[in-house]
Amino acid sequence: MPMYDRAEEINKLFGRKLREIRNSQKLSQYELWLISGIATSQIGKIERGTGNPTLATIVSLARALKVPFDDLMPRELLKD
Amino acid sequence: MPMYDRAEEINKLFGRKLREIRNSQKLSQYELWLISGIATSQIGKIERGTGNPTLATIVSLARALKVPFDDLMPRELLKD
Repeated sequence: MPMYDRAEEINKLFGRKLREIRNSQKLSQYELWLISGIATSQIGKIERGTGNPTLATIVSLARALKVPFDDLMPRELLKD
Repeated sequence: MPMYDRAEEINKLFGRKLREIRNSQKLSQYELWLISGIATSQIGKIERGTGNPTLATIVSLARALKVPFDDLMPRELLKD
């Protein structure tokens, strides 16, 4: 089953992980913007699960938070 | 420096990794389409570095190839 049908769920899970990691590093969305270059409005949308982050955005966030991609990508997405 | 400026480079690196892993599993683009649901035209674009894969597409490909996200995402992207 293509994951397109689960894009909403995937984006929500990713958003929750992003917020979790950002909070664990005691960073505001503004501070994450300063480090990643991703606008706070976009960060907010992604965290609410309504953004549809592209590869470049995911890379920017992982670099800024200094976490491997696997940490940002919810592992449950790899299971059926 | 936001990674947007390096989106082209990121997409190229990702595309190369995708092709590398697909070939190592002896899968054609057609067979990867059957498993992932991502159209062969889109797979071709992504492998050439001209597609701009979203999170849901990246998840579909990682699941289909049964690899962790970190394998698909070129590690050099995490370094300065």
